[in-house]
Amino acid sequence: MKIDDNFYMKLAIDEAWKYQLLTYPNPAVGCVIVKDGRILAIEAHKEAGMPHAEINALKTAFLTKESNSLLKIKNDSTEIHRFLMENHDGFFEDCEIFVTLEPCNHIGKTPSCAKLLSILKPKRVIVSVEDPNKQASGGIETLKNVNIEVIIGVLKKEGENLILPFKTWQNKTCIFFKMAQTLNGMIDGQISTHRAKLYVHTIRDKIDLLMVGGNTVRIDKPTLDTRYVFGKDPDVFIYSKNKVFSQNIPLFNIANRKVIVSDDLFKLLDYKFIMVEGVYNLLNILKDKIDFIVLIVNPKIRSGINAINDINLDFEILHENYLGDEKIVFLKRKYI
Amino acid sequence: MKIDDNFYMKLAIDEAWKYQLLTYPNPAVGCVIVKDGRILAIEAHKEAGMPHAEINALKTAFLTKESNSLLKIKNDSTEIHRFLMENHDGFFEDCEIFVTLEPCNHIGKTPSCAKLLSILKPKRVIVSVEDPNKQASGGIETLKNVNIEVIIGVLKKEGENLILPFKTWQNKTCIFFKMAQTLNGMIDGQISTHRAKLYVHTIRDKIDLLMVGGNTVRIDKPTLDTRYVFGKDPDVFIYSKNKVFSQNIPLFNIANRKVIVSDDLFKLLDYKFIMVEGVYNLLNILKDKIDFIVLIVNPKIRSGINAINDINLDFEILHENYLGDEKIVFLKRKYI
Repeated sequence: MKIDDNFYMKLAIDEAWKYQLLTYPNPAVGCVIVKDGRILAIEAHKEAGMPHAEINALKTAFLTKESNSLLKIKNDSTEIHRFLMENHDGFFEDCEIFVTLEPCNHIGKTPSCAKLLSILKPKRVIVSVEDPNKQASGGIETLKNVNIEVIIGVLKKEGENLILPFKTWQNKTCIFFKMAQTLNGMIDGQISTHRAKLYVHTIRDKIDLLMVGGNTVRIDKPTLDTRYVFGKDPDVFIYSKNKVFSQNIPLFNIANRKVIVSDDLFKLLDYKFIMVEGVYNLLNILKDKIDFIVLIVNPKIRSGINAINDINLDFEILHENYLGDEKIVFLKRKYI
Repeated sequence: MKIDDNFYMKLAIDEAWKYQLLTYPNPAVGCVIVKDGRILAIEAHKEAGMPHAEINALKTAFLTKESNSLLKIKNDSTEIHRFLMENHDGFFEDCEIFVTLEPCNHIGKTPSCAKLLSILKPKRVIVSVEDPNKQASGGIETLKNVNIEVIIGVLKKEGENLILPFKTWQNKTCIFFKMAQTLNGMIDGQISTHRAKLYVHTIRDKIDLLMVGGNTVRIDKPTLDTRYVFGKDPDVFIYSKNKVFSQNIPLFNIANRKVIVSDDLFKLLDYKFIMVEGVYNLLNILKDKIDFIVLIVNPKIRSGINAINDINLDFEILHENYLGDEKIVFLKRKYI
């Protein structure tokens, strides 16, 4: 295997995917720092309000030099920025910094990453994709203005795939479909392990609307909360022509939650970040409205209700990862 | 992400999986060389008779120092050994060598890797699993005898998974099941892309027996050859109670091929390395006889014959990879 810019960028991209969706409304971003051929840091942005990927990576990299530095106890982005500006001592001048997205140029919740990099003066900054967000872009210009070599477009397709969710929610209501199945497409009953359920609850904490089908509500009587992670319980949209539901179903009895029972999909547009939890019939109804799919696959074969359907859809695999022993697969519709 | 022994060993393991099954009868092995924190090589053993993983990695690593060295044009294992023994000049003394399997100690088609390493004297050799093959083992002893630090058991579980096929065919007839399906478990008609077919033909070239079900032969009228890779066409075992087949079906008209029509599974024991190409009904019949499964998944949803079945099986995902836009998943039965 060739150890080149693509190799390091791939490490940054894979790290970023671990926090995909969890960074909402920010993009998932990864950063790798290489000093004289040695990998010092592989880090990612983990949650909005927390340090950007570059800042996490700069901190980790600096600590390889001075593991007992005061920097160790600094977790706030502004403090890390300030510390590095004052104490970098040329440490980063022979570093190459691989970042999946153009370093931000605006001062938001945290100071600008491009500004900090322009002071630390790394040898090269390698960027997969330019920032589609006009408010944050301009980082590459800032770096070039101080004569830092900037390479753009390394693993561009993979970098674009990584920010597909971000690009979606930047521009419109983002709707994604979450489905769980066995290897052979069986979708009946409890499929997922506790580890996968924890992940789903973590995602529910980030979204502002959870959509489910009426039959699922009637049969499964779900709670649709975030009890495993003590998060914020999202509003629920029950897609159903028949508006009558027993109010004893647990999901109706969650504090601070609005429940909408409707078959009018236009109501979805009141929300920004929507997860649909369903199976193939709901996917069929929504197939032209969803931006991507999160498929959780438990590696077992089960008899039971199979994914019998009349739909023909093609996908591109954006990325995949493990959730314990299960797989999580991010898919995008492909039109051929 | 922590950049530690596990990180480098994972790179070696992933590289080795790219050549899984293709190294038959040898094990799939990967090797990573790190010099002063810098990754110089990520290589694998690719085919029996070709250089071992360590030799490929030592060559790549040495060429980072002297890219125009004569070593560049040496591809034969014995020649690479000799060149490195005579010209290493202490280059590897500050290297760490990560290898997924204990370096071989016996002189087979190629000289012993352990012997070569004992001369090159790397700082550390990190091994995932010890060699289960008694004839080849003893490599760790050889290294320790010249005071090279040896670490054993890094990512042991992943290392064991990697050599599961090897351990199987070392000890008995190895039978694995290959299946292709869509995301939703549809198995009807042509599922795989050309890229996946190329891979299957490459595997057919390695095995000595290909087993298929009688119905598949009658309906699909397959050739079951290796025409995409100009390989060796394996013998065919048609599992069928009804022994009557039209001899016009192409698979019967391949030169130098034996075709067995039988429902006596004991006949499989005349062979060493057997691939079953089939779907769920054949899997159900063979489920207690197969050593692992190779599942090719095309990321699309299709209506058609679904994987309707009455079997309940649990698996562990050994590894997975891409075949172009498709997935290849290696699965092992899990008994719970």
